[in-house]
Amino acid sequence: MNKIPVGILGATGMVGQMYVSLLANHPWFEVTYAAASPRSAGKKYAQAVTGRWHVDGSAAGKNGGGNAGGIGELIVEDANDVSKAVDAHKAGRCTFVFSALEMGKDEIRALEEAYAAAGIPVVSNASAHRWTPDVAMLIAEVNHHHTGLIPIQRKNRGWDKGFIVVKPNCSIQSYTTPLWALMQKGYEIKRLIVSTMQAVSGAGYPGVPSWDIIDNLVPYIGGEEEKSEMEPLKIFGSINNDGVLENAAEPKISAHCNRVPVSDGHTACVSLEFGTKKPSIDEVKKIWSEFKSLPQEEHFPTAPERPIIVREEADRPQPRKDRDADKAMAVIVGRIRPCTIFDLRFVGLSHNTIRGAAGGGILSAELLKHKGFI
Amino acid sequence: MNKIPVGILGATGMVGQMYVSLLANHPWFEVTYAAASPRSAGKKYAQAVTGRWHVDGSAAGKNGGGNAGGIGELIVEDANDVSKAVDAHKAGRCTFVFSALEMGKDEIRALEEAYAAAGIPVVSNASAHRWTPDVAMLIAEVNHHHTGLIPIQRKNRGWDKGFIVVKPNCSIQSYTTPLWALMQKGYEIKRLIVSTMQAVSGAGYPGVPSWDIIDNLVPYIGGEEEKSEMEPLKIFGSINNDGVLENAAEPKISAHCNRVPVSDGHTACVSLEFGTKKPSIDEVKKIWSEFKSLPQEEHFPTAPERPIIVREEADRPQPRKDRDADKAMAVIVGRIRPCTIFDLRFVGLSHNTIRGAAGGGILSAELLKHKGFI
Amino acid sequence: MNKIPVGILGATGMVGQMYVSLLANHPWFEVTYAAASPRSAGKKYAQAVTGRWHVDGSAAGKNGGGNAGGIGELIVEDANDVSKAVDAHKAGRCTFVFSALEMGKDEIRALEEAYAAAGIPVVSNASAHRWTPDVAMLIAEVNHHHTGLIPIQRKNRGWDKGFIVVKPNCSIQSYTTPLWALMQKGYEIKRLIVSTMQAVSGAGYPGVPSWDIIDNLVPYIGGEEEKSEMEPLKIFGSINNDGVLENAAEPKISAHCNRVPVSDGHTACVSLEFGTKKPSIDEVKKIWSEFKSLPQEEHFPTAPERPIIVREEADRPQPRKDRDADKAMAVIVGRIRPCTIFDLRFVGLSHNTIRGAAGGGILSAELLKHKGFI
Amino acid sequence: MNKIPVGILGATGMVGQMYVSLLANHPWFEVTYAAASPRSAGKKYAQAVTGRWHVDGSAAGKNGGGNAGGIGELIVEDANDVSKAVDAHKAGRCTFVFSALEMGKDEIRALEEAYAAAGIPVVSNASAHRWTPDVAMLIAEVNHHHTGLIPIQRKNRGWDKGFIVVKPNCSIQSYTTPLWALMQKGYEIKRLIVSTMQAVSGAGYPGVPSWDIIDNLVPYIGGEEEKSEMEPLKIFGSINNDGVLENAAEPKISAHCNRVPVSDGHTACVSLEFGTKKPSIDEVKKIWSEFKSLPQEEHFPTAPERPIIVREEADRPQPRKDRDADKAMAVIVGRIRPCTIFDLRFVGLSHNTIRGAAGGGILSAELLKHKGFI
Repeated sequence: MNKIPVGILGATGMVGQMYVSLLANHPWFEVTYAAASPRSAGKKYAQAVTGRWHVDGSAAGKNGGGNAGGIGELIVEDANDVSKAVDAHKAGRCTFVFSALEMGKDEIRALEEAYAAAGIPVVSNASAHRWTPDVAMLIAEVNHHHTGLIPIQRKNRGWDKGFIVVKPNCSIQSYTTPLWALMQKGYEIKRLIVSTMQAVSGAGYPGVPSWDIIDNLVPYIGGEEEKSEMEPLKIFGSINNDGVLENAAEPKISAHCNRVPVSDGHTACVSLEFGTKKPSIDEVKKIWSEFKSLPQEEHFPTAPERPIIVREEADRPQPRKDRDADKAMAVIVGRIRPCTIFDLRFVGLSHNTIRGAAGGGILSAELLKHKGFI
Repeated sequence: MNKIPVGILGATGMVGQMYVSLLANHPWFEVTYAAASPRSAGKKYAQAVTGRWHVDGSAAGKNGGGNAGGIGELIVEDANDVSKAVDAHKAGRCTFVFSALEMGKDEIRALEEAYAAAGIPVVSNASAHRWTPDVAMLIAEVNHHHTGLIPIQRKNRGWDKGFIVVKPNCSIQSYTTPLWALMQKGYEIKRLIVSTMQAVSGAGYPGVPSWDIIDNLVPYIGGEEEKSEMEPLKIFGSINNDGVLENAAEPKISAHCNRVPVSDGHTACVSLEFGTKKPSIDEVKKIWSEFKSLPQEEHFPTAPERPIIVREEADRPQPRKDRDADKAMAVIVGRIRPCTIFDLRFVGLSHNTIRGAAGGGILSAELLKHKGFI
Repeated sequence: MNKIPVGILGATGMVGQMYVSLLANHPWFEVTYAAASPRSAGKKYAQAVTGRWHVDGSAAGKNGGGNAGGIGELIVEDANDVSKAVDAHKAGRCTFVFSALEMGKDEIRALEEAYAAAGIPVVSNASAHRWTPDVAMLIAEVNHHHTGLIPIQRKNRGWDKGFIVVKPNCSIQSYTTPLWALMQKGYEIKRLIVSTMQAVSGAGYPGVPSWDIIDNLVPYIGGEEEKSEMEPLKIFGSINNDGVLENAAEPKISAHCNRVPVSDGHTACVSLEFGTKKPSIDEVKKIWSEFKSLPQEEHFPTAPERPIIVREEADRPQPRKDRDADKAMAVIVGRIRPCTIFDLRFVGLSHNTIRGAAGGGILSAELLKHKGFI
Repeated sequence: MNKIPVGILGATGMVGQMYVSLLANHPWFEVTYAAASPRSAGKKYAQAVTGRWHVDGSAAGKNGGGNAGGIGELIVEDANDVSKAVDAHKAGRCTFVFSALEMGKDEIRALEEAYAAAGIPVVSNASAHRWTPDVAMLIAEVNHHHTGLIPIQRKNRGWDKGFIVVKPNCSIQSYTTPLWALMQKGYEIKRLIVSTMQAVSGAGYPGVPSWDIIDNLVPYIGGEEEKSEMEPLKIFGSINNDGVLENAAEPKISAHCNRVPVSDGHTACVSLEFGTKKPSIDEVKKIWSEFKSLPQEEHFPTAPERPIIVREEADRPQPRKDRDADKAMAVIVGRIRPCTIFDLRFVGLSHNTIRGAAGGGILSAELLKHKGFI
């Protein structure tokens, strides 16, 4: 089959590079359009990232051994100039875009809307539209039904073909899917207290100064706790009869977010309280081990075989050893045990720049293709 | 004044070395007796630690600049041979001992009892006697009144001058004193969920393999969560009219203990629930900033000026930058804010091998001297 | 084609686990025999490594997603009992063995000889036989012709089918192949001064205590400098008419070996002096970029496409970002520039547990199969 | 005695903060003037560094325990406005300044000259004037006689009381003093090849992104190798009869400079070649152990008791364990052994932001006071 031509906005930044790297051999999508800041515009992609390629291997192709489907030769366009993308769209070189824009929130919000208004679907990694009521914040295994917001969004905005979907913050990905799996089996989750230990790559590049993290940790990440406490409620929400997404009322979340000297992989220690109906520890393990959702059933190419991998060893998961499990797209859980105060304790881990960013965005795009939106 | 001659059991191990280092210029105590495993016995101390001196600087004296009060020349005795210490005791060269023994729990328990039975007080860093009912587990600023167990212990055992006191686990020191300060002001603490990020030095030497901690963390420390959940209840307990220490019933604690790539300094993220009476955030800060206890009032040489230092910056405390505050004996707290589920959240930090081990032991000894027990 | 059944001695140790992991999907070889210490003997492999699986993912299969060709079900044999391997050999379940034994040098030497004497070829990762005159120390791209020692060795020892080959120390792999490539083009190398920065995995497990490496480095690795200065001379040696391997006389090497806080990947800073004939910097780059040898020409499955990858960026190679290049089997060089004292400076990097250990051993085995020795 | 009032230019940056911290209890100097960028001007110092205090403890005083001699209350002036310093100078509040300016080289050069022209001596940490012929680049134990350039500089420039001295790059401090000690004993040093492993604090703040240094190292530091190869020649130079500083012709240096995951402390692996006269290893150790210079003889307050500390352990010096030796002002050397190519190998270590920056600058100022220049 012919691959769908896709564009990347913010293609030269850290998340943009992850998209380039992960899409190098994608069976459905092919990167044929790259846009970034005016500083990069007009340069070949390989040249634009020279001296600032942050992903493993080289810009010319992962591990220096080949070339990423010709992406290195693409001329980078100015991401602020939507007309360039429209031209490419008309010419069949940009069916939709992944947004990895790095600019002010208001600018991103407006720019993503401009792309959508121009007929180009936007799958965004940015936080700008996460709380826009008619924009779905997707985790493909959890709320794939929220794609139902797309027709509503189009109608609200008078958009024909374009639309916007976003992904949630990377910090919540290591426990949101496990919570959902339990909720799906009828176990209400009332409250949870979570403490995260997050990788430096979550702060982008240059991000955390090494002076602040060698032999150290920082018990604070600006805005992260608020996001962690609110975003799951939108993800767990339901679209009502009026086509409005109503947030879930529960679980109530209290988050402590910490930065630790780990390159990739966010780890979360979770204590949670169920409603009246409480599963046994064995039941929890069974639910998580067996959990599958639409991406698994439909065999999306980027979907992990198992969205949740249960580790029985006393000391797992660990970020360096487990973050790459199943293409770095699985959530790995361990230390599943009772809580002395609430009901259940566990440790969750997910790869923040793959599952939590570019890989998650690609999985959302696969979902959208499956549902016929792109 | 003449200094009190003290001995160190397990003097060549990591904690033993910390005792040697911290006592080098102590105004009250002087190390005049060193005992270790049979392998080291008979050697000069400097020779016994050659090639395995883990503390900063050199065995010949901190920073290689001098010599630690002649300790390098001491002949190391066999710690298993109590008679050697008794001889030294009689000769006025070993008034009491710090125990930093590293052997099986049962062996330590028996050996410490043998020293005490022989008339030599034991201030122990080991966990062996923490749950022995008539042994006080001391944090000098918190339960100095538990020294009241010493006469009871002597009576129970038929010991004349010897006795045993212990210090609690290093993992709880960053929040136990803050809890106590609040309790002292009449605020009941019902429950708390704590997640720790603990330094590798807490595992001793060789301890954590570097393969397991570079670009990684380990969400498990054997036995640590159980200790964290129980030990504060003994520390907060009261001696009843029958001379029995009754553990406190609260707070109920749920602990997640993690090992992180930090050399020294344990950090804890705490969410806690008060009883009916709840202090404001400002009240909490005021109580902690102003908290002083017996070690401060009596100006014990190792006591920090302020047992609790409140940091107002959004991103503090941090282990590398704050662990050495006030001779590494203070607890540093920050991020004091409401909890969305319980009442209060904060981050606590303390230096695990100084405040949490050797320094804490020395402070206990100062307390015991002040109270006339040594 | 039917795969060749292979055994692993020391299969439960760190290098043994790497062999298991790397051979999981090998097109020529299949692990059908595993031996380790008596402690592991009699257990299933998966059970024997429970709680001490050090490689990424799980013992049940990399990334927990499958199972490593049934190896988890293999009953581990006692490596000291050669008769077990002989039985397996006769039963067609152990054509040859990879030795990743961890015991005393003398014991390893004797045990490897016992396997060879019993007719079982040994491809060893251990250092025991590196300086045995009739044992080839192989880097497949460099001295594949040293397999010519095998018939001589067999004759010397009266062995029929068995033999021993070894691989060199991991510390020299990041510059030995580049040196060889230059020598092949007629450039004599007289002297070199090298300073290495070596990963902790080179010390095995538990290896370097984390206390010694966090925010630190250790400018000493026991025995490593001596090996680094001598081993290349054997590798560059020639088999004379009497069937004796004569070591090369040059280059003269001075090595500084350092341990740094890196998990995998040894980096070397090299200054070298040519003989009279001196290549230009461009010539050096060309020679390295174009270098291929027998493993490339014959397309051995584990061979990197390019044994030497030249990086032009000012700040590469870097261990975390480049060690996995081309299946972690390539040497990556950069900072190729003149030396102000000698002639040439460069930085070399190779993955120490793959290229420098298990992967290198597998490549040697592929060479031996190609040459008909197994 | 009354303390000399001093100013700090660039007082809010990382090195400026180190000056503030180190001068907090200095017996001769007192910080009474602080200048920084226009952004900080007009604020109290404590306020200006809020949220960006990078040194241990807090801006209000090391370890949060006190207050740094009132510095926190100083109103920060605009460093570009020399007239402010002149006013302070006239008012007896700024006898001389330490320059820790962070701006373009040309701007720094001009600004430091403006202060000097206005009669205010400048002790600079910046590299701008290192190669200005009549500016001394001082290491107090090595070339204290280069203060002889000050009268020449004043005459050249028509300056009355002002002058400029600088300190060399931090990367060379771990071996320059040892080289000098040998040269002083008549041992000519012809050539040396050095490979450094440098701490991240050498790059300032924010400096090295943590993404680039966790589980990694960077074998390149822009401009550092050139500085390392040239600066010792100026330091070892002599002032000729015409009052011109003539650089030394030797040693010829080849440097490899690497950034490693260490917070503070630069380590260097050195191979060097003597002239005809070659000391034995024991002689080298004796020369280094016994080396003292003017700062020691005259007991300057910041001078280490021993400028060079010789460690005999096989695995020392190590940055985290040894960098703080003797107020972090000593050079620690170890692994003193013959070189297989040149004559001598050793490892040197020095604290880059104390000995190599602020502490070294303070020692230079003490030298200048001793010689009557301030």
